[in-house]
Amino acid sequence: MKRRQFVKTLGAGTLLGGSAFSGAGAAAEQRFNWKLVTTWPPNFPVFQDGVERFAKDVRRMSDGRLNIQVFAGGELVPPLQSFEAVSQGTVEMGHGAAYYWAGKVPAAQFFTAVPFGLNAQGMNAWLYSGGGLKLWREVYEPFGLTPFPMGNTGVQMGGWFRKPIKSLADLKGLKMRIPGLGGKVMAKAGVNPVLLAGGEIFTALDRGTIDATEWVGPYHDLRLGLYRAAKHYYYPGWHEPGPVLELIINSKAWEGLPRELQLTIETATAASNLWMLSEFEARNLEALRTLQEKYHVEVLEFPSDVLAALREFADVVLDEQAAKDEVFRRVRDAYRAFQADNAAWNAVSETAYARSLRKIKVGML
Amino acid sequence: MKRRQFVKTLGAGTLLGGSAFSGAGAAAEQRFNWKLVTTWPPNFPVFQDGVERFAKDVRRMSDGRLNIQVFAGGELVPPLQSFEAVSQGTVEMGHGAAYYWAGKVPAAQFFTAVPFGLNAQGMNAWLYSGGGLKLWREVYEPFGLTPFPMGNTGVQMGGWFRKPIKSLADLKGLKMRIPGLGGKVMAKAGVNPVLLAGGEIFTALDRGTIDATEWVGPYHDLRLGLYRAAKHYYYPGWHEPGPVLELIINSKAWEGLPRELQLTIETATAASNLWMLSEFEARNLEALRTLQEKYHVEVLEFPSDVLAALREFADVVLDEQAAKDEVFRRVRDAYRAFQADNAAWNAVSETAYARSLRKIKVGML
Repeated sequence: MKRRQFVKTLGAGTLLGGSAFSGAGAAAEQRFNWKLVTTWPPNFPVFQDGVERFAKDVRRMSDGRLNIQVFAGGELVPPLQSFEAVSQGTVEMGHGAAYYWAGKVPAAQFFTAVPFGLNAQGMNAWLYSGGGLKLWREVYEPFGLTPFPMGNTGVQMGGWFRKPIKSLADLKGLKMRIPGLGGKVMAKAGVNPVLLAGGEIFTALDRGTIDATEWVGPYHDLRLGLYRAAKHYYYPGWHEPGPVLELIINSKAWEGLPRELQLTIETATAASNLWMLSEFEARNLEALRTLQEKYHVEVLEFPSDVLAALREFADVVLDEQAAKDEVFRRVRDAYRAFQADNAAWNAVSETAYARSLRKIKVGML
Repeated sequence: MKRRQFVKTLGAGTLLGGSAFSGAGAAAEQRFNWKLVTTWPPNFPVFQDGVERFAKDVRRMSDGRLNIQVFAGGELVPPLQSFEAVSQGTVEMGHGAAYYWAGKVPAAQFFTAVPFGLNAQGMNAWLYSGGGLKLWREVYEPFGLTPFPMGNTGVQMGGWFRKPIKSLADLKGLKMRIPGLGGKVMAKAGVNPVLLAGGEIFTALDRGTIDATEWVGPYHDLRLGLYRAAKHYYYPGWHEPGPVLELIINSKAWEGLPRELQLTIETATAASNLWMLSEFEARNLEALRTLQEKYHVEVLEFPSDVLAALREFADVVLDEQAAKDEVFRRVRDAYRAFQADNAAWNAVSETAYARSLRKIKVGML
């Protein structure tokens, strides 16, 4: 407020001397030129576009006081080194997904997606109104990072397979590009999980170096051309049912911002969060239709016994990780409690409503 | 930018004369003292709280340049006259729900909720990324109003009934407080729909003047004490599967705002939209448990044949309204097309995922 009072005083024509120009007024008028590095390729739709839109909005809302220069993955920092870069203060901000840092911070995975975990609406409820964001801040605190939810893909697809999956036995021995907890769950089913960057996936799948891959959803998968290398496209994306994207800010830089600029960033991340999810929800179907109609992709549901087995493996994987890492266990317990409540509420809200749209008998879902 | 350059110049100590205080600098520094009237009771959780939070955030983000004074329903303008008050410019902003204006603008109902229509995630996708908000602006344009989505309750509950609903026949002759399209659908089932303000509902239900009522969801219904007057609490809220709340702004006032303040408002409405939904998603279950455990409320699902019949009535009601009103028909067609696509996407995403969480066979939902 001090700066405003100062300017108002000027506007009223009561300027009497130089003393008014020192101190709070000049400090509050400070401009910030920040750098934001992402983990995404340049022009990556929704993700990179959304981050650039966010930076532009913040600059305009702050009337140019907070100028954020956005760099795609590799333009300034290698895509998966943004955590360190922001932690060390090389740059002020990063955009990516918390589970990329699972090697350093296993518990971070809960703030992106958990196999058979919360969907997008559930994640937002947990983070904003159920204590999740507070936990996330605690988990990132030792790294000098302040995280914000900023984006969500909605339920992803289950992945591209060169051969159909008719039973659990068909998974055994497959090489599949699937990172994180999803990969660990698949490993329990006999899959050999492989890590590959986005740009390497198509060639590996096309040459048969891998038998299967997951990526994002129809809108992004279409662009990556995966339909040219595999024709069986499975749903649902049980391994990533509502992945949250994150904005991380170097905590010292964050604390050095005036409160109004902090609030501008915070508000803009929430708006971006909702916008990205809405884009996916509105764009995925058209891409799925193109895949089916133009490229003759078979869109198939995982058999229910395969899903049931994966769900049990998921519990085992979480238990194993929890036994190894105290922070993981603490976050897992909080997440699990929220998820149980959320499922109970969904049973009388979203799930019951979805059922009311179909001509089936009560009790089937 | 001009204002900033002006202030920066001052800060650098280059102030030489009075001329710097005239023109663009002074104009850009203009302060706005606006009034916002809501349709909600004072201290109404989430809704009124959320609007007050929004106003506070905008004031802080704009560093006091845009000061919005919030009035609950009746404090300045009667709750359901805010549309006129904002349209005429008596106040600059209003918060409520578009379907309150159905008498004046039948098509407005699509921008809140439609029986068996889109859920919260679907509404956001339609409004932000599927052309819905553009249509909404066209529909409000003749009234000099600029609307924004700002809030969502998620799937509501189906309502409180003094007697159980076991078949369609049990609805016949009931007096039920249920407004809008939901009331018209219920009328097709032989219900006598009644309009009552929130404050009148409990007494009417308690005295048997009405046999049933819908309100919001567990979090709000608990506070209204409805469990003391009826013990059968039905789900799902087929009549309001994801009701959007709205911020309306007098278009002349809106156009008179500098671009950075417009963007601040727009961004804050999206953040509020997400926050309100998250609050409901996180708070409803605890209230539902209290209703069940402490007040012995029976939480029941509408029979599937009742829902199937209501779903058919809903189509008839929309067709009848569309035949009477060209704007309604145009919005209905756009909404229906989006909903069909959204349902197709949900079939491989949210719905399939929800099914994967249960131990049931594929094909049942």
